[in-house]
This record gives sequence, C-alpha cells and structure tokens, in this order.
Amino acid sequence: MASDIRIALDAMGGDHGPSVVVPAAAVALERRPDLQFLFYGEANAIKPLLGSHPGLAAKSQVFHTDVAVKMSDKPSQALRTGRRVSSMWQTIEAVKSGAADCAVSAGNTGALMAMAKFCLHTMAPIERPAIAAMWPTLRGESIVLDVGATIGGDAQHLVDLAVMGAAMARIVLDIDSPTVGLLNVGAEEIKGVEEVRAAGRILREATLPNLRYLGFVEGDDLGKGAVDVFVTEGFTGNIALKTAEGTARQLSQYIRDAMGSSLMARIGALFARPALEALRAKMGPRASGGVFLGLDGVVIKAHGGADAESYAGAVELGYDMVRQELLGKIGEMIAHANGFRPMPAHSGAARS
Amino acid sequence: MASDIRIALDAMGGDHGPSVVVPAAAVALERRPDLQFLFYGEANAIKPLLGSHPGLAAKSQVFHTDVAVKMSDKPSQALRTGRRVSSMWQTIEAVKSGAADCAVSAGNTGALMAMAKFCLHTMAPIERPAIAAMWPTLRGESIVLDVGATIGGDAQHLVDLAVMGAAMARIVLDIDSPTVGLLNVGAEEIKGVEEVRAAGRILREATLPNLRYLGFVEGDDLGKGAVDVFVTEGFTGNIALKTAEGTARQLSQYIRDAMGSSLMARIGALFARPALEALRAKMGPRASGGVFLGLDGVVIKAHGGADAESYAGAVELGYDMVRQELLGKIGEMIAHANGFRPMPAHSGAARS
Repeated sequence: MASDIRIALDAMGGDHGPSVVVPAAAVALERRPDLQFLFYGEANAIKPLLGSHPGLAAKSQVFHTDVAVKMSDKPSQALRTGRRVSSMWQTIEAVKSGAADCAVSAGNTGALMAMAKFCLHTMAPIERPAIAAMWPTLRGESIVLDVGATIGGDAQHLVDLAVMGAAMARIVLDIDSPTVGLLNVGAEEIKGVEEVRAAGRILREATLPNLRYLGFVEGDDLGKGAVDVFVTEGFTGNIALKTAEGTARQLSQYIRDAMGSSLMARIGALFARPALEALRAKMGPRASGGVFLGLDGVVIKAHGGADAESYAGAVELGYDMVRQELLGKIGEMIAHANGFRPMPAHSGAARS
Repeated sequence: MASDIRIALDAMGGDHGPSVVVPAAAVALERRPDLQFLFYGEANAIKPLLGSHPGLAAKSQVFHTDVAVKMSDKPSQALRTGRRVSSMWQTIEAVKSGAADCAVSAGNTGALMAMAKFCLHTMAPIERPAIAAMWPTLRGESIVLDVGATIGGDAQHLVDLAVMGAAMARIVLDIDSPTVGLLNVGAEEIKGVEEVRAAGRILREATLPNLRYLGFVEGDDLGKGAVDVFVTEGFTGNIALKTAEGTARQLSQYIRDAMGSSLMARIGALFARPALEALRAKMGPRASGGVFLGLDGVVIKAHGGADAESYAGAVELGYDMVRQELLGKIGEMIAHANGFRPMPAHSGAARS
C-alpha cells in the first residue's frame, strides 16, 4: 500500500486560524484516511482543538511557533519578521526538508509566494512561479494561470504556464490531454501582443504530449469553459480573476435586491429558496484557492476566508497533487517542451 | 436657440441594419427633438422604413451607398474594399466634412476604428485613440477605457486615457470632477507594471482640474463602481470587459437553471417573474456600446446586436457628447495635462 501523504498546515493562516484549520483537517482525513498532518502555529490554540478530534490527533504532530504572518503584512515585511520563525515559513520548510509532501496555508498570498520562492526555489528550467486558480464554468471547472504571481512575461514564460497548467489539469480535471488556450483580444486589427503570438507559434509547433493547444481565447470564453487551461501573464490574469469575482458579487447583490423588491418577488424567493441557495454557492468566492506552480515543492493557497469545508478542499487538492505526482508530470512535460526553448535553460528574461 | 445636432448613421451596420437603425432614430428624435439624421446605406431599404415615420423623414436625408462592411471583415479588408464607398466610411466622412456632428455605427468595431483613425485622425497631442465603455456598477455606471482600441502603452498614454475618460464622465455621469483610478494588481510585492506606477505619479502631481485621481484600483472594484473612470491599456481592458460579460452570461444561465430545477423553484420563478426580468436587463450586454475617444470627431459604436431602444441610447450618447462639447473638454484638459508631458507633444511611443 502507498504510504501516507503528509500535509504541513499553517494553522495561523487565514481569517480564522486554527479554529478552521483543525476541523478542516478532520474533514479531509475522513475522506482521505491516508493523510498525516504537521500543524505549525500556536500550540496552545491547536492542541485543545485536536482534543475534540481524537482520530485526527493520532495522525497529527504539532510544532509550536511564536510568530504569525499577518494578512496585512507586505511580503518583504513578512520575510523580514517571519523567516524561519513564523508558522508560514515552517510550513513551507517542512516541504523543503522532506518532513512533509505538501504545504497548505490560507495566509497572505504575497507573503506565502515570497517565502515559497525563497525557501523552495523554482523548478529548473522554470524561472518564474505562477498561481493557478480553479475557475467555475458552464462546463464545470477550468484552470486559469497566472492569476498574479508575477507580472508580464515573454513567450517562453507563457509556454511554461501552458505546460504547468496542463500538468495540473491532468490531475484535477482527470483529462489525459487537456485543451489549452492563450488569452488574447479579439479585434482582428490588433492580433494581441507579440509575446502571446510567439507563444502560440511555439505551442502549435511543439505538439507536446498531454496538451492540446487550441489557439487564442477571449475573456468571455472563461465563463464558457472553452478550454481546460487558460493561459495569461499575471497582470491580466489577476485583473480577470478579480473582475469575475466582483461581477459575481455584484450580480448576487442584484439578485438579493430583486428578490426583495416586491411582495410577489419575496414570495417567489421563499419558494425558490433552495434553488437560490444552490445558486449562491456557485457564485461565491473560488473556494478551493490556488495552486503554486513552478516551485520545487507543492504549495496550496487556501482562500483567506475559507470555512472548514472549503479549506478541506484545498487540503485534498494538495493530496491529489502529491499522490498523482504534479512535479513529476511538470518535469516530464517541460523536458518535452525544452526542445523548443529558444536558448538553453534559464535564458528567459526574468522580469518579475 | 441652439442649432440641431446632426447625426450620421451607418444604416447597414450591426446585425439588423436599417430595420433597427431607422426606428431607433425615430425613438431618439422623440426624446431629443433637436436632432437631424443623415442615413448612409441601401436607399431602397431605408426609404420605405422612413415612410412609416413621417416626423423622422422630415428631419432626415438619405445617401445611397452600394457597399456594406461585413461584421466578419478584417479591418484591413474593410479599409481596402470599403474606403470611400461603404456606408461606414461615408458615415465617418460626414463628420470629417462637417456635414454631421457625430457618427454612429453598430458595425464591426475593428473596421470602424480603423476607418475612423484613417479618416478623422487623432486629436493632437493624443496619438492613440481609445474605446470607452459604460460599465454597470452597484453605484450606477462607471466608464472603463481602453477596452481594446490599442494594446499596451506608456505612462503618457494612460494619462491621456484618464483625461479623456474624465472629460467623457463629466458629460455622461454629470459630475464636475469625476474620480479616476488606474487598474492594477493588488499584491504588495508586485506593485504593478512600471507604466502604471509612472502614470499614477503624473496624475497625482498634475492635480488636473475636473479630475480627482484616487490611486490604484483592482478588478473587483469595477463591479463596486469604486471610481467613476477606470483606466487601463486596451489588452487588459478588453479582457476585463469580456470576462465581466461572460461572467454575467454564465450567472444568467445559472439562474435559469436554478429557477427550473424543481417544481418549487418554478413556482417561485413565476411569482418573481417581474423581478427576474428586471434582473435580466441589468445582466445583459452593455447596451449603449462604446465611445471612440482621442479622434478629431465624435464616433459612437452601438452594440452589434442592439435593438431600437438600445441603439437610440447610442444616438443620444452621441447627442450629449456633441451638445456638451466632448472634444472641447478633452482639449482643455489635455492642455492642462500637457505641462506634465515628459517631452513635447507627439513624443509618446506609438506601439499599437
């Protein structure tokens, strides 16, 4: 039988800290009994919570830390005050040292990425890590990356994103050859930026295994789920993600307003309540957080406001990434793509 | 009394051609009696339609054209086959020649922009035109630009966009000093691209009249209407616009599905029908189309699928722009901003 997957948890991360992280681990363990946990954080806060989950306690270790990175800390600040000593750092370092297979944190995204880069480094020849988000679509879910790890990027960076996204899609979407599209603008006159066109040429010519490049896609293809993996650099990806989240919140507000706008509408809302609640769940924030790709280790970012169920989803995402060998799959695909690198490894301009 | 505003209409533009454009003009004329129209297109199609609107016919001229730009034409193709002879070209040329005060078309956006640039040129010292969209928000409406006229741009381009957007906001939002934000990413580590930061510095230092610069905004501020004018270059702006439209369509589909998901939900939907219909209107495509800014003339793009009511909105938008002197307001504000241009006029890098 395969050995347990060991997840390091930043118990102090997120809006709710251990009060969500511990129950979340219990939920995940129920569904994935071959899990073990390493909790990093305030031991006095974690241990009593573990007391009410004896099954979880038996598969957990607690490592006390004195420092917690704040949600408001700047990455540079977090590195200065939290390096080595914070729960976030030690969670990542557990992966680096081999004590854990995967790190999960609901903490400050910028700080988490800065520490992950500093501690784990990128996986050669990838120079710039990315954050991949799960995007709910009319077809199910797609992967969108980069949603804000770095800004800008040359064609090679976009190709790396495509490869890493496809490797992740093989695991989370369970598709052997995921479809990939490059986010671009539609106007014919302006066929997009040169980097995007060049990346398109590379992807078309490379005919990589386990990746079906379908060409350019546009912003409105995201909601349709036109491809399994949407690739764009982090500036546009971050703005697209937040625009979609903002639009969903705006429309939720419209629905609430509409459903309270008249007596008839309120009666209607009463009848339709279960349907409206199901709808609300679909429109909520992207529950499962993001996956950090391109690092020499698996790091999962849970949503800062995640509840136990949604945090458990992030843990299981990490479990799947390790069990199905995300890093190996990326490495394999990168080796194939490498033949198409314009220059030897580490030649891409680092512009972050 | 002020003289009539003369609107040139590309009767062949859009999905429905004269069958929408003529009734739309009648609707607009009812609300703005000081309008006159110049119709360009297939005279045999336009004249019978005018016959059923005698009030409109009395204030209209029809100019026959043989060529219509297709929605699928590439801009270069449209310019090659449609220059001088197409209804689209002649609609724009009417503004150039002074025969009309404003051009409105529901045709192919790329072709319309290419022809408008070619025929009208940009308004010095502005080098690159922009498309500004009205964006429905929880506070009402904001202006977002550029949503796809050109790609990329230096700090000066972003400052020009801010100034043009503010001038437009003074008219359509009726605010003396509209608030302006630069779209950026939130992660602290990556404070956005250098161009955006540099534009922020210029806007902060310039303290332009009729413009209140509020700093950086993020994708989720769009739906909130955090500022009156959102400024970004055309690649990101186009993707943000289409992502929001796609998300709205996706959620509309979710609502339809939810409201048919059970007998109770269907009963609820019956009661809530008027509220749901009002909601649908809010979630539909941006009805009023876009305004082309930075050209030496007023050009309005109506939505390709516009119905008569929505097309009439585009005509009235054009009316307001002319009546309240959009070009004069832009010129004035640009003159103020000019003191902050890093180099003499026309120095900005043209990268389109």
